[in-house]
Amino acid sequence: MRAALLATLAAVSSVAMTPFAADTDLIRGFTPESSRVERDWEAKFKAIPEPSRMREAMRRLSARPHNVGSPYDKDNAEWLRDQFRSYGWQTEIESFDVLYPTPKERVLEMVAPTRFTADLNEKKIDIDPTSGQSDEQLPPYVAYSHDGDVTGPLVFVNYGIPADYDELERHGISVKGAIVIAKYGGSWRGIKPKVAAEHGAIGCLIYSDPRDDGYAGGDVFPNGPMRPSQGVQRGSVADMPTYAGDPMTPGVGSTRNAKRLPLDQVTTITKIPTLPVSYGNAQPLLAALGGPIVPAAWRGGLPITYRFGPGQARVHLKVESNWNQKPIYDVIARLPGTTEADQWVIRGNHHDAWVNGAEDPISGLVAELEEARALGQLVKQGWKPKRTVIYAAWDGEEPGLLGSTEWVETHQDELAKHAVAYINSDTNGRGFLGIEGSHILENFINGVEKDVQDPESNVSVWKRNQSRTISTGTIEARKDARSRADLRIDALGSGSDYSPFLQHLGIPALNLGYGGEDGGGIYHSVYDDFYWYTHFSDTAFVYGRALAQTAGTAVMRLASADMIPFTFGNLAETARTYVTEVQKLRDTRFDQITEADKAIDEGVYMMISDPHAPTVAPSRKVAPPQFNFAPLLSAVDSLGRSAARYDSAFSRGTVSATSAQMATRAASIRAVNEHLLQAERAMTTTEGLKGRPWYRHLLYAPGFYTGYGVKTMPGVREAIEQGSWSDVDGEITRIAAALNREATLVSQLAGELAR
Amino acid sequence: MRAALLATLAAVSSVAMTPFAADTDLIRGFTPESSRVERDWEAKFKAIPEPSRMREAMRRLSARPHNVGSPYDKDNAEWLRDQFRSYGWQTEIESFDVLYPTPKERVLEMVAPTRFTADLNEKKIDIDPTSGQSDEQLPPYVAYSHDGDVTGPLVFVNYGIPADYDELERHGISVKGAIVIAKYGGSWRGIKPKVAAEHGAIGCLIYSDPRDDGYAGGDVFPNGPMRPSQGVQRGSVADMPTYAGDPMTPGVGSTRNAKRLPLDQVTTITKIPTLPVSYGNAQPLLAALGGPIVPAAWRGGLPITYRFGPGQARVHLKVESNWNQKPIYDVIARLPGTTEADQWVIRGNHHDAWVNGAEDPISGLVAELEEARALGQLVKQGWKPKRTVIYAAWDGEEPGLLGSTEWVETHQDELAKHAVAYINSDTNGRGFLGIEGSHILENFINGVEKDVQDPESNVSVWKRNQSRTISTGTIEARKDARSRADLRIDALGSGSDYSPFLQHLGIPALNLGYGGEDGGGIYHSVYDDFYWYTHFSDTAFVYGRALAQTAGTAVMRLASADMIPFTFGNLAETARTYVTEVQKLRDTRFDQITEADKAIDEGVYMMISDPHAPTVAPSRKVAPPQFNFAPLLSAVDSLGRSAARYDSAFSRGTVSATSAQMATRAASIRAVNEHLLQAERAMTTTEGLKGRPWYRHLLYAPGFYTGYGVKTMPGVREAIEQGSWSDVDGEITRIAAALNREATLVSQLAGELAR
Repeated sequence: MRAALLATLAAVSSVAMTPFAADTDLIRGFTPESSRVERDWEAKFKAIPEPSRMREAMRRLSARPHNVGSPYDKDNAEWLRDQFRSYGWQTEIESFDVLYPTPKERVLEMVAPTRFTADLNEKKIDIDPTSGQSDEQLPPYVAYSHDGDVTGPLVFVNYGIPADYDELERHGISVKGAIVIAKYGGSWRGIKPKVAAEHGAIGCLIYSDPRDDGYAGGDVFPNGPMRPSQGVQRGSVADMPTYAGDPMTPGVGSTRNAKRLPLDQVTTITKIPTLPVSYGNAQPLLAALGGPIVPAAWRGGLPITYRFGPGQARVHLKVESNWNQKPIYDVIARLPGTTEADQWVIRGNHHDAWVNGAEDPISGLVAELEEARALGQLVKQGWKPKRTVIYAAWDGEEPGLLGSTEWVETHQDELAKHAVAYINSDTNGRGFLGIEGSHILENFINGVEKDVQDPESNVSVWKRNQSRTISTGTIEARKDARSRADLRIDALGSGSDYSPFLQHLGIPALNLGYGGEDGGGIYHSVYDDFYWYTHFSDTAFVYGRALAQTAGTAVMRLASADMIPFTFGNLAETARTYVTEVQKLRDTRFDQITEADKAIDEGVYMMISDPHAPTVAPSRKVAPPQFNFAPLLSAVDSLGRSAARYDSAFSRGTVSATSAQMATRAASIRAVNEHLLQAERAMTTTEGLKGRPWYRHLLYAPGFYTGYGVKTMPGVREAIEQGSWSDVDGEITRIAAALNREATLVSQLAGELAR
Repeated sequence: MRAALLATLAAVSSVAMTPFAADTDLIRGFTPESSRVERDWEAKFKAIPEPSRMREAMRRLSARPHNVGSPYDKDNAEWLRDQFRSYGWQTEIESFDVLYPTPKERVLEMVAPTRFTADLNEKKIDIDPTSGQSDEQLPPYVAYSHDGDVTGPLVFVNYGIPADYDELERHGISVKGAIVIAKYGGSWRGIKPKVAAEHGAIGCLIYSDPRDDGYAGGDVFPNGPMRPSQGVQRGSVADMPTYAGDPMTPGVGSTRNAKRLPLDQVTTITKIPTLPVSYGNAQPLLAALGGPIVPAAWRGGLPITYRFGPGQARVHLKVESNWNQKPIYDVIARLPGTTEADQWVIRGNHHDAWVNGAEDPISGLVAELEEARALGQLVKQGWKPKRTVIYAAWDGEEPGLLGSTEWVETHQDELAKHAVAYINSDTNGRGFLGIEGSHILENFINGVEKDVQDPESNVSVWKRNQSRTISTGTIEARKDARSRADLRIDALGSGSDYSPFLQHLGIPALNLGYGGEDGGGIYHSVYDDFYWYTHFSDTAFVYGRALAQTAGTAVMRLASADMIPFTFGNLAETARTYVTEVQKLRDTRFDQITEADKAIDEGVYMMISDPHAPTVAPSRKVAPPQFNFAPLLSAVDSLGRSAARYDSAFSRGTVSATSAQMATRAASIRAVNEHLLQAERAMTTTEGLKGRPWYRHLLYAPGFYTGYGVKTMPGVREAIEQGSWSDVDGEITRIAAALNREATLVSQLAGELAR
């Protein structure tokens, strides 16, 4: 009679195509009865979050600059703790000490062909009441820039990613001994000084081009949401793709007495001094550049001729920081579970900002706060989540995911045992629900997405996302959107607090946020404040409420499900697309390299060079050999078969179990759930990725040369991208082993279900 | 013994892959002996053109404004006539009277939300001696704009092509009753007012965006070659895709007593007043626009937020012309042929300009002049071309190919009988040889291209072009460039004097010019003058010499070949690619329309609309049915077989005929040559294209909605593009019939050769 267990668990994938009927459907992981109960609680929950409270919380939390180490950062943490407590949560502040450099001296001047000194400051705008809090504002800088005082020729490097240096090479331009100026965008900012230093540059400037987030996209602040000429994007430039968290304590919590690397042994600090500047300050520098004219794709929105440089342009750059330890304050709130209290559902959003940070991160945090308040109310009304729910407000996300990483590293043993999933949010705005995350949660989050209404149209946020893909997607994406039960979710790279959970510990993670109809150009500037947000973003906080409804529903379902609703078919299918991609990548690289070599042999590059603006042939590269993708393909096949067995075991039988029947099978259910907690961990490896052991997930990592952007199957993909041919077969084997572990686990689970 | 004829004619296609050995090879259409003689004369010829003489001729011809009707236009014609005469050519001026409107009144002012009056003039630049000749300069205007005095809201329409109005429709923006402002580019300028009027606009402004030919591409004049803020592009906006030439005399020569349409019956004048403006004048207008922000692809290089409009922006536009008849002066020079004097090889370049026109058209004309001088010298040294050579310097090209068209229409009966081919040039600059033309000349011109050296590198211009395609082409183009005997040439659209020859009469044509390393932004402005050209373009006139060598060699070969060197295999193969393209076009349109309709049914557009910036669904369209492409495929097959027979007949046998042997076969050769003259004419039809009977070629025409850009197999392609499904099968039949006529002719030629 063990098959009867299956009967109790609804399989929603077959009804996934009828989202509008979803409210009357079973929820995956719940019985008919527990589904009804869950839906009742969810309906109550969704009615509670109030836009007006989010607005007031944002006003309070963004009233003063609250970067790491500032008085208001601590004040906010204490206020947040008190809020959670007032909602009925067990709440403590957990503190760590981290390396957090702040600006000591910043100088940028052009010394030839004319003199110009950049003012490097963001001005007060009268109509915006918090923009003038200069006593507490951190001036524009990037954290973890190397100290330095350099003078050299200036070279424009577009976005400063590796492909841009190939283009420079074609024009015979070297950045050796030069200061480069790169546009923001195209990669995470920390990549720019890293790649520049690899090419011999001695300094790095990063500016916000008006084509990217300035006047090209709309009126500039305060007349519109876009970046004004003096606006500067602060940020971290630590080598986060190597490891996240406190640079002095990789892999361990930076508690007071933790063993720390000495400053001169920290490898994630940039190799060259780096400074962010406004387009107002960048324009005279760029206009002074000589050299050939850049390709059309490199040109920005300034009314100048963009050139590579250097010509006569020389720049003096000095950057010096105070290299201090600062405390960070994570706010950790708990609602203890009942029957499965040792299974933890974790939800987080950071609270620190670069300056006032109304959008980043308060817009997400106020939604999380309203979730917490609503869940607190449900508890008072009798809601009893099976699992323990942990809500976190992280500190120190901006400089390098410090608060989340140090907490995860400190509690890694418990988390490895107890964590079910981590749900993250960060900035939130108007538009479409963005979802990135683990593919074992893809079906689950599609179910949530179908049950949340878009606040500005009369359809679910799922339906809006489906429509967007149909409207703008590729042929394959359109086909998927119409016929696949679940909309695809993107994999997670980095850029917010999910990284330590997913990529260091192998905890399934989701990142949620609304956006896409809320363009702006105040990111990491003093103008990201209450005035800006309440004039130009989710001004009615209805998407704030939608985020609270979305993340809160996800938390509730994970906390109360009879069976943890992971699925594996989507994972197997998605992994197969990654294999296809890396196979194609190898072939494309082969074609590119052999083609370029052939053209070199033919003298093509010599013959097309214009003597008035000479170009040179690209350097020769070694073409990739054939690789043995068979282990990876076999592992994906195997995972697909296991997933099908699991789904079949899950779906077989009827859906009519009573709670009495469930109670008699509690031990079996518990065993399966316990085992499910290892489902994401199985794809990690203790030795981590090559050259960056902190990253242990073999399927998902931030790109070593993209930073934010994910590289799926990073071992194989990056070995191919970087031409490390001898690494590829070994990495294929490692990833295949991870997928085989997953297949074995899923197969065992299917067996347990069928028992 | 008739097969022996074949033996006398060299077939070069098999040796086409060895361009560097070309000087020692046979020339297609010549015997071994006549090849040697020809090569000797060509070597002498190539040594004659002198850069310094081109420079001085440019100085003289561009010394004053010389637009149609100006004193210096006539003066130039007379000077050119005298030059040709001094070189030993029989030269006359042939004059026509044409409708040529000149500006009477031009007013452009913004009347809301603020007032701004555009000055509409190009300023003198002190360092540039001719830029201040304001007494003789035509102020910026477009010729054949409708007179009008209109006031209305202003709407930005990107390039103003049909697809741009689809985008406007998606944003719910109508131009009905509005004045539109379009960027130059994306189509021929006359398309912009035409499409605007079709959508109900009442006026049209066209401006040069700095992203396209202003500071984005380099320093602006006089510091660099690009368009300064006050620079304006003049031009014609007559509906040239309907017919070229004098608007009052379509299809007939505009001789003094020709029957003329009354002005109010001329259909090629725009329906709405139209004016070109500088980006200096456009910026305040564009900055005043309200409405949604345009897509990224629409944005230009001005430091503003580009919006659709209208918002509050209202504009007053007044355009009035003097609608006068003006004389034009074609200079026609002849070198009479010897044995085949009734076969005419025609070469032309226009001499009129919008203002001083150093680049357009004098840079091409001075090369033509040096060819004429060199050929005159050869005649004195004993060169005796078989065929008559006609060199023309056309007047009135700028307003609408007036000089060439009226001459072609006047002499159409003789030309239909006698014309072998027409070789055109126009502006010339630094860089790669651009070739467009009839595909029966593709192999021929590849042969010429291999025998001209690039002046700035040590390779042939053919090799440089091959390298460029290998370096930047698609995979297919690269493969072709490496393995096909001939580099592909583009088909001819319109925009210079080849149109009446090729598209009205069916005379094989080529358009030749160097460029691609010579960017600039002075096109049709007062700054296109001697100062600009001698500072920023082909300053040493070495590409002028290369053009003279290229076009002159082509003329000499056509004039002296024992057998006219047309080939048909390239034509058949190219026609097959056109059939594939139109088949794909049908399928793509089917997919697009059915997809859009499906998305409308699904409510996709409603669901993705942002209530803060609403968009609407595209209008429903009827999807194309299946068409019967079989007749076209059969005709291409048939032409391919005929071409193979012809090539085989041409190539069979040896290549050792003596001139004595040739003499005995003169009658046969003459018969084949005479018959070859009809080879392009066979692809025309007397009734012409649907709705524009002046265009008679069924394979090549300027696009009705592109103007310059060619539409190959226009009857079918444009019917599909425009959704005229019921026309497609009929047009397939017409084109198939034309290709079958060609196949029959080629087959007969093969038979005659084999006799």
